Amino acid sequence: MAVPGPGYSITVRVDAPAAASTAGDLTTAVGQVGGVLTAFDIVESHTDRIVVDISANVIDAEHADGVTDALEQLEGVRVRKVSDRTFLIHLGGKIEVNSKVALRNRDDLSRAYTPGVARVCKAIAANPEDARRLTIKRNTVAVVTDGSAVLGLGNIGPAAALPVMEGKAALFKKFAGVDAWPVCLDTQDTDELIRTVELLAPSYAGINLEDIAAPRCFEIEARLREKLDIPVFHDDQHGTAIVVLAALRNALRVVGKDIADCKIVVCGVGAAGSAIIRLLRAKGPGDIVAVGRRGIVHTGLDDMNSNVRWIAENTNAEQSQGSLHEALVGADVFIGVSGPNLFGAEQVETMAKDPVVFALANPDPEIDPIEAQQHAAVVATGRSDYPNQINNVLAFPGVFRGLLDAHAHQIKDEMMVAAADAIADVVDSDRLNAAFIVPSVFDAAVAPAVADAVKSVALREG
Amino acid sequence: MAVPGPGYSITVRVDAPAAASTAGDLTTAVGQVGGVLTAFDIVESHTDRIVVDISANVIDAEHADGVTDALEQLEGVRVRKVSDRTFLIHLGGKIEVNSKVALRNRDDLSRAYTPGVARVCKAIAANPEDARRLTIKRNTVAVVTDGSAVLGLGNIGPAAALPVMEGKAALFKKFAGVDAWPVCLDTQDTDELIRTVELLAPSYAGINLEDIAAPRCFEIEARLREKLDIPVFHDDQHGTAIVVLAALRNALRVVGKDIADCKIVVCGVGAAGSAIIRLLRAKGPGDIVAVGRRGIVHTGLDDMNSNVRWIAENTNAEQSQGSLHEALVGADVFIGVSGPNLFGAEQVETMAKDPVVFALANPDPEIDPIEAQQHAAVVATGRSDYPNQINNVLAFPGVFRGLLDAHAHQIKDEMMVAAADAIADVVDSDRLNAAFIVPSVFDAAVAPAVADAVKSVALREG
Repeated sequence: MAVPGPGYSITVRVDAPAAASTAGDLTTAVGQVGGVLTAFDIVESHTDRIVVDISANVIDAEHADGVTDALEQLEGVRVRKVSDRTFLIHLGGKIEVNSKVALRNRDDLSRAYTPGVARVCKAIAANPEDARRLTIKRNTVAVVTDGSAVLGLGNIGPAAALPVMEGKAALFKKFAGVDAWPVCLDTQDTDELIRTVELLAPSYAGINLEDIAAPRCFEIEARLREKLDIPVFHDDQHGTAIVVLAALRNALRVVGKDIADCKIVVCGVGAAGSAIIRLLRAKGPGDIVAVGRRGIVHTGLDDMNSNVRWIAENTNAEQSQGSLHEALVGADVFIGVSGPNLFGAEQVETMAKDPVVFALANPDPEIDPIEAQQHAAVVATGRSDYPNQINNVLAFPGVFRGLLDAHAHQIKDEMMVAAADAIADVVDSDRLNAAFIVPSVFDAAVAPAVADAVKSVALREG
Repeated sequence: MAVPGPGYSITVRVDAPAAASTAGDLTTAVGQVGGVLTAFDIVESHTDRIVVDISANVIDAEHADGVTDALEQLEGVRVRKVSDRTFLIHLGGKIEVNSKVALRNRDDLSRAYTPGVARVCKAIAANPEDARRLTIKRNTVAVVTDGSAVLGLGNIGPAAALPVMEGKAALFKKFAGVDAWPVCLDTQDTDELIRTVELLAPSYAGINLEDIAAPRCFEIEARLREKLDIPVFHDDQHGTAIVVLAALRNALRVVGKDIADCKIVVCGVGAAGSAIIRLLRAKGPGDIVAVGRRGIVHTGLDDMNSNVRWIAENTNAEQSQGSLHEALVGADVFIGVSGPNLFGAEQVETMAKDPVVFALANPDPEIDPIEAQQHAAVVATGRSDYPNQINNVLAFPGVFRGLLDAHAHQIKDEMMVAAADAIADVVDSDRLNAAFIVPSVFDAAVAPAVADAVKSVALREG
């Protein structure tokens, strides 16, 4: 299903004859090997030669070479340089630290630094809560990872995870004005990671855990919540769960079902699946059936870790057993956060009337969304090239904006449910349909709505 | 010696009669109680009343109250609000994190975040050194403290130290374009602090240790230099030492002495004093005599920690003993990084001809600089209200700029000596005199000169 996309975009600089047919020849060559041309810029022009930057989306490195070769093989054309636009924007990193105060002259320096700053230090020493007013703690979140479960790439370590954390920090600022800082830790020892975050916490008003492998992530989150007086939020769990809950609410509005009557199959009992199950329970579903690698989760399984045991004990009212395919029979909703290509249209056909299918495995969903659409009433994926993308960006910026503005010391399930409802409510009934159950990630109304909802609950709970 | 300064500046908003004499009455009232008026702004004007913001520098909280009372006691004047301008600029912190990449649309998101970012992660996983090219590591320094020795305030802890570290980060950006981030650690255990910095290191290309108490700071720096492949620089030690070395070079140009003929007394064997001694030795001084709380340091002292023992063994060629006052007799240079009011003009008189006195204790120097000037040829302090301020801001931004640009894995004494020479050389012979031995902290030529010098040595050393 791979198609060229802007995530892999190259710019090829070529030297070519200044002939009437050159532009056509170049663009045709790109198209013939499947490259998607996105820009054609002449950077130099001479009587007989031109130098052109040709930008194109491609699938992968091999495809990029194919496009380059196709250009090179044209008569009189010479490739000078191939740039990868994704790498270009990463040069030197994606975020920076700036001063918010002027430092033009001695007076400025005397206030922002010595000697004036000493009075601010003394005020905080006397009243530590003042750090939330007089320092970056007011608005700053740590994005903490150990690099153990980064995107679909697995355990690539802290340095290789940094580009993701930087991107996250950029999104925090863009969508919610939150200052976020990457904390990539060179340890995968649970105790050491917890202790390190504890030692770092004085400068931060919130901890966003990111891309930490299950089941370690559960213990890390739980123990940090116990130790710290600031909210701790594992985005892979709760960010996903919030957006799934929002999307499900709107999907059920589309098909006219009440969640209390729905059988919901959740496939995947890692970080995301577990959090989805926990948050779904707050909405009183008819039943939830969880499916792991060994099939339907029930209390009769042996060797369950404490997370899976909790799921077994709190789902599957009938304690059914069997495969994913068996679980799907009669189900109203499928939510997959597992792996690629687990079922097909024939299994969707066995589900209840107007089934809802969220196939969120990335990059390859549990079922090809085109195939799912043959029988499903609503389909969502984690991908940006299909309708209804379930994207955490809808949740985390607003969630932390609300927590920071409420000076919250912890995050609770009620806040996450409120966040999900707020996201769902951004899609008013005029716009709601099977292809539009969640707002666009660029909808500027989302983060403020989520922030307000989270802040209200936080202030109400004290 | 306390005088009103911009480090404590208040703005008093008053409601006053719209009479011809009002402005004069208000400003006179401020002056009569010793406030230094810095601004007079009419914010509202009516037929019979005006609202005025009166800004004034004061000495301390009591003095601020005195100024406010003086205004309140004027006929027809009512004080509406008193703002402390130092606290105002600290609200919400002094630095922020911004995105360097556009995130306007889906294409931007696909390159800066998923799915494009995955290729950048994979590149770094395959070749870790690429983190210096493709992430913030390229340009980012951690400003690490445990809050154990903050300014002159002592052990106030990590949260209260944060305003200083934020100020430092702001200065790093302002003077050298370096992204610096405050890391305020909630531990004063040496092993734990070292381990934490080690775990954090993947995201940074340098570590600036700050305000960590001696003698712990020596071990922390030494062990971190051993463990990390990025430069570790304790600014309280080396930043001070570099600027002292620069100032001394120019002071000796003023008095026409060669350092090889000079007896130099260094008073204070903590972080700064020890580093000054170590760096001075690179310049081949006649002799250095160190003075601690127990008087002149010599090998016969008992109970010396390893730092003081090293000093005893590497200074004081004659192994003299005695008090600071005795040490000063015949000395060419005094460098004090110790405490207030240790000697007077009569001791300066006992020094060699044209003595150089650097009385750097803050806020109160080892000798009142006005008194020192009676007999000294050159006087420097750490204060901004006298000539020749020895300020680390002249060193650390350029030092790290040079280290980052050289992709340096460590910092060596030769780089620090080169930095000192570069600072000294910014003062050309046309401008050099007894009141101008170091450039202004706002001289934009300093950081680039320091950076070039450090980078050259780093690249030469490989």
